[in-house]
Amino acid sequence: MMTDKLIDKIRKTGAPIVVGLDPMMKFVPEHIKRLAFEAKGETLEGAAEAIWLYNKEIIDKTYDLIPAVKPQIAMYEQFGIAGLAAFKKTVDYCKEKDLIVIGDVKRGDIGSTSEAYAAAHLGRVNVGSSVCAGFDEDFATVNPYLGSDGIQPFINICKEEKKGIFILVKTSNSSSGEFQDRLVKDKDTERPLYEIVGEKVAEWGEQLVGENGYSSVGAVVGATYPEQGRVLRRLMPKTFILVPGYGAQGGKGKDLIHFFDDNRLGAIINSSRGIIAAYQNEKYEKFGALNFADASRQAVIDMIEDIDQAFAGVER
Amino acid sequence: MMTDKLIDKIRKTGAPIVVGLDPMMKFVPEHIKRLAFEAKGETLEGAAEAIWLYNKEIIDKTYDLIPAVKPQIAMYEQFGIAGLAAFKKTVDYCKEKDLIVIGDVKRGDIGSTSEAYAAAHLGRVNVGSSVCAGFDEDFATVNPYLGSDGIQPFINICKEEKKGIFILVKTSNSSSGEFQDRLVKDKDTERPLYEIVGEKVAEWGEQLVGENGYSSVGAVVGATYPEQGRVLRRLMPKTFILVPGYGAQGGKGKDLIHFFDDNRLGAIINSSRGIIAAYQNEKYEKFGALNFADASRQAVIDMIEDIDQAFAGVER
Repeated sequence: MMTDKLIDKIRKTGAPIVVGLDPMMKFVPEHIKRLAFEAKGETLEGAAEAIWLYNKEIIDKTYDLIPAVKPQIAMYEQFGIAGLAAFKKTVDYCKEKDLIVIGDVKRGDIGSTSEAYAAAHLGRVNVGSSVCAGFDEDFATVNPYLGSDGIQPFINICKEEKKGIFILVKTSNSSSGEFQDRLVKDKDTERPLYEIVGEKVAEWGEQLVGENGYSSVGAVVGATYPEQGRVLRRLMPKTFILVPGYGAQGGKGKDLIHFFDDNRLGAIINSSRGIIAAYQNEKYEKFGALNFADASRQAVIDMIEDIDQAFAGVER
Repeated sequence: MMTDKLIDKIRKTGAPIVVGLDPMMKFVPEHIKRLAFEAKGETLEGAAEAIWLYNKEIIDKTYDLIPAVKPQIAMYEQFGIAGLAAFKKTVDYCKEKDLIVIGDVKRGDIGSTSEAYAAAHLGRVNVGSSVCAGFDEDFATVNPYLGSDGIQPFINICKEEKKGIFILVKTSNSSSGEFQDRLVKDKDTERPLYEIVGEKVAEWGEQLVGENGYSSVGAVVGATYPEQGRVLRRLMPKTFILVPGYGAQGGKGKDLIHFFDDNRLGAIINSSRGIIAAYQNEKYEKFGALNFADASRQAVIDMIEDIDQAFAGVER
């Protein structure tokens, strides 16, 4: 089961964190851009080369500290085919480095279309008599709005390929409440929609529970909503939670402990720009743009310590 | 405004329909697959070539009858980079043929990530001192689960680029009710979630109303739910509705009229496999696999007539 593999890696590294590889051009140091544009021009190919070179250095300087990465495909997709080729190169390189790759793709459709998305990111396709893989990440994030018809095809492919998904439940953004917090009639009571979705995620997840007691059908719950995280942790006891929103989006170490179980498992915290663009942060500016990846390494070390301290300091 | 352009094309063709270019390998005739695999092998490139050749022939035989096409990106994405290159080639070719291209991508994220998706599909990106486009469709479909933070970046790019979006409101699949139909507390009453989302779509759309009175922020409402379509038509009077689920999914001509206004505008009906795989349907088998695109042309003609008859036959 993919979640067992993730838990193993978290135990080995002592780091329940994932680095979000969301390269924006404004994060990429000038010297990298210069190199890339000289090689490929100020084109989609040049941009793709720049984000690949940038990613590679960050991966090289952090892979031994962390269990997983989460490339955000939108940041690559905006550079068209060339950008998506850089996404694929990043996925493959991370897997070579024995990192678990969570494709943050937030796909979601129905029936054969969801099946195609699942094949694209987690599975394989038949072409004549051969079998090929598209992007081949380890996990993918999935949007639940379309219901079971959208989710089951992903679960089927997770079973076949021993892969996993994380389903959006309560997202980290400030307007996530517009629909997700709406009070929904449920038997004799009323509950927010994200709880209803969370329960459904737990139900879907029963199909893929691994030896550590956690399912390979996980949930996304934002670090910015610690109270909701506490409720959802209890409502979905076998659901591993991917927690975005730490750092740049405002989530703090002490907000995070509610997402974990008593063994410090059950959650993995994402940080993107806080790690990959650390050198642009006052705290790490001494590294300078040339040593941007060393700044990222230091930011990872500090993040692990921040989480450790939160566990040490707070009674649950 | 892109919706004005769409309305113009619908008026000129007399066809409020869109052909869903969702090429599955099982639809592609053997002689096309043979050609493609001979040229590129039984590889992702071979599969991509097969779906491109298949698409091209269907486009060539139908473009003069229809205003728009809707390629479903999942069907291309499953073949990785090569598949997405075939998606891009299809988008470009359709635009050469003066078709409006609705990228059925169902993307959705927050903030800068949603901005990147919007740039990828509707906008442009800066690379050094040049400006490049990724996929450059005319419309994209968008998932609303994350709220305004996810939608506004798309609307901003629609304003700049005169493009449009269709937001999922009530999808055509049988489990769409799991979340979308949940009764939500709203002031002193209770209403299904899809109505709440529909109202929000109407509100977002106020920013992009065109000269025909319709916004370039549209909605997706499944043909399989005509009663909900009737309610939503009234609730969102300026919202153009993209209606999937006709034909193969069970929606019929007479179910469709509720999605339109009194001038037969306000909606566009999608058919995918009913058109592109028509030659596999008993009704059109006389065309044979070699003439698969002629079968598609006949299926388009029949679909236009089915809708015309529905308008002629039914009192609203």
